[in-house]
Amino acid sequence: MGLVVQKYGGSSVADAEGIKRVAKRIVEAKKNGHQVVVVVSAMGDTTDELIDLAEQVSPMPAGREFDMLLTAGERISMALLAMAIKNLGHEAQSFTGSQAGVITDSVHNKARIIDVTPGRIRTALDEGNIAIVAGFQGVSQDKKDITTLGRGGSDTTAVALAAALDAEVCEIYTDVDGVFTADPRVVKKARKIDWISFEDMLELASSGSKVLLHRCVEYARRYNIPIHVRSSFSGLQGTWVSNEPRGDRTVEQAIISGVAHDTSEAKITVVGVPDKPGEAAAIFRTIADAEINIDMVVQNVSAAATGLTDISFTLPKTEGRKAIDALEKQKAAIGFESLRYDDQIGKISLVGAGMKTNPGVTASFFEALSNAGVNIELISTSEIRISVVTRADDVNEAVRAVHTAFGLDSESAEAVVYGGTGR
Amino acid sequence: MGLVVQKYGGSSVADAEGIKRVAKRIVEAKKNGHQVVVVVSAMGDTTDELIDLAEQVSPMPAGREFDMLLTAGERISMALLAMAIKNLGHEAQSFTGSQAGVITDSVHNKARIIDVTPGRIRTALDEGNIAIVAGFQGVSQDKKDITTLGRGGSDTTAVALAAALDAEVCEIYTDVDGVFTADPRVVKKARKIDWISFEDMLELASSGSKVLLHRCVEYARRYNIPIHVRSSFSGLQGTWVSNEPRGDRTVEQAIISGVAHDTSEAKITVVGVPDKPGEAAAIFRTIADAEINIDMVVQNVSAAATGLTDISFTLPKTEGRKAIDALEKQKAAIGFESLRYDDQIGKISLVGAGMKTNPGVTASFFEALSNAGVNIELISTSEIRISVVTRADDVNEAVRAVHTAFGLDSESAEAVVYGGTGR
Repeated sequence: MGLVVQKYGGSSVADAEGIKRVAKRIVEAKKNGHQVVVVVSAMGDTTDELIDLAEQVSPMPAGREFDMLLTAGERISMALLAMAIKNLGHEAQSFTGSQAGVITDSVHNKARIIDVTPGRIRTALDEGNIAIVAGFQGVSQDKKDITTLGRGGSDTTAVALAAALDAEVCEIYTDVDGVFTADPRVVKKARKIDWISFEDMLELASSGSKVLLHRCVEYARRYNIPIHVRSSFSGLQGTWVSNEPRGDRTVEQAIISGVAHDTSEAKITVVGVPDKPGEAAAIFRTIADAEINIDMVVQNVSAAATGLTDISFTLPKTEGRKAIDALEKQKAAIGFESLRYDDQIGKISLVGAGMKTNPGVTASFFEALSNAGVNIELISTSEIRISVVTRADDVNEAVRAVHTAFGLDSESAEAVVYGGTGR
Repeated sequence: MGLVVQKYGGSSVADAEGIKRVAKRIVEAKKNGHQVVVVVSAMGDTTDELIDLAEQVSPMPAGREFDMLLTAGERISMALLAMAIKNLGHEAQSFTGSQAGVITDSVHNKARIIDVTPGRIRTALDEGNIAIVAGFQGVSQDKKDITTLGRGGSDTTAVALAAALDAEVCEIYTDVDGVFTADPRVVKKARKIDWISFEDMLELASSGSKVLLHRCVEYARRYNIPIHVRSSFSGLQGTWVSNEPRGDRTVEQAIISGVAHDTSEAKITVVGVPDKPGEAAAIFRTIADAEINIDMVVQNVSAAATGLTDISFTLPKTEGRKAIDALEKQKAAIGFESLRYDDQIGKISLVGAGMKTNPGVTASFFEALSNAGVNIELISTSEIRISVVTRADDVNEAVRAVHTAFGLDSESAEAVVYGGTGR
């Protein structure tokens, strides 16, 4: 029996009862002969409450102090969890990100892990302890300041520790049963996926699936750490994310892993761009300089008569204002006619490594959307993903139609509570 | 203009408004040309809420994890305070006890400071920052674990930093205007003391005055750091505690500094103790082995006929059960007849260095009590203090009578809100 890293999100430790329930589960793993390292998020709404306080004292809380503030949340949950475990008769020690050796760069509020030196964790484990580690936080290499890892940070902490400690598996406990073939709030017949490859999981994550964040899956793939996403409220097997299909699940490997959707993006169309070299570069350099990440990019065929073309791209709605402002400033330099902003769009993505060798997939996808009366506005593809942009109002219907068309519906409709991952 | 250490208690930073008010005051000190180090406690009831959570998950929270939990409180208040200061256009950085170099022993929940190495604080100050430091917490020298300093810990942090940084003054901001000649909740005519010596302040603190704790004053005396206790809600001068009387206050130096009272103690009488050498030692060794601190000790004159005597002592009510149990176990070995436990007592103490050279003080003290109809049960004296034990019901009346008899009443009766120091 080897070493297991378990990560519990805020909803799993929302109150004293939750903490006691999680403590029991951790002790089970220990009793089964594992060395256990636990990464824990802040309790329930703690982080939101701290952010609210910060906004009351300062309209734009500063990076370093904001991180100092937010990291109090995990300090509370990890200490309580260690106490609850001790109360069950087992030894546990809690460690801050800094004490656990999570070394980051100095970019406050969204630091990146650059090294993990878990010497104190090893010692604690060797002495028979269960080690509880604060998720979401680290210490900067140069200034020794407290940093936070940004969204999905606790999952990343867990995977990074699993890699540094050469763990057998990184178990991500959450409030859903695993990764589903579609969002069960939208598709009642969505099925839990038993196994999915890192690649497909990466595509799902970047297409709107919220169970695991892209960053955490990317880290796990790099170090080849199997992730097991499962519910902290049940004893059920969840979804394994790994390189190699597990056990008898090889036979199940489907052409399509799932359907993801995303309504958090907006579309900007740059109208009347001179159709000559360097124009697209000028537009996207402007966007990049504003530190905005874009998603899909489409350029229409130029109308021969005018020599002008349109370029559309999608980006997070939250960045919309900033992008428009940045482009308007460069309007003369770039030489376009106007900008159109549309935040009533949705994106539907079909993900599956099997589509590489199944030429009919794209056609079936478009047929399913057409039969459901859904109009396609943009198309973008990768080797293992097809994404389309539609009206936001059409998204749910489109997801259900595609899910059914690719035979993903489960026999029995299940009602599943589905939540976000927090941090 | 030199370096000033300011300490703000939990009631001063109880909410966002309080934090903003405190931030303004800090910025004032900075604008006046001082280098400013601020020690801050947890916000209002935060600590109690954390303790409540701990008790929900574990009936006896463990030392190390309990400290990890509680220190989250200061992390929140100090980060918010730094943000609020930045919002006023000044630079501020917050530091945990560990980052500030507060090195302690490993006794969790009541660690003692053994060294202060404020290198990071110095650097922050030299760079023009206001340094905000978490009170009440440190890091253990041997294990590098987070520790807390126990009751009055934030005041002690402030004085220790003031000593290590060679500060001009340590300002303790609280919710009262300073140290009073008696508890203003009991004596409406109590006066604020402008200056008091370390020695008198130590006696007041150990006699029930709660504005400053003994430990903090002792530390300040050892390093000769003047303390200025004052209100965070007003701009008034408070009480200076120092070696040398300040300015024109020398002429004011009174015979008596103040009257303290304490109703938190109980009295144990060991009845029928053989009047021979070693008996008292056996009793107090038993108490010491149980790690109980006692206060007053009185032995009656032996009744010649029986050769038996009674020994009485006072101790915190919270330790009463433990002391009785410890003595009962040793009953046969010590050879006493019975134990009497009385928790309906109160202690009144008169404190003042002047009484050394004023022989009438003791007589006047007893006369005042007698005139008020208060019966004296135990008496204990030091060079600058007289304490008596009375019925708890008589304490308030006794304090008022003594306060008046020694001419401490102010001309005008003031209504003052009087609170504890928290931590």
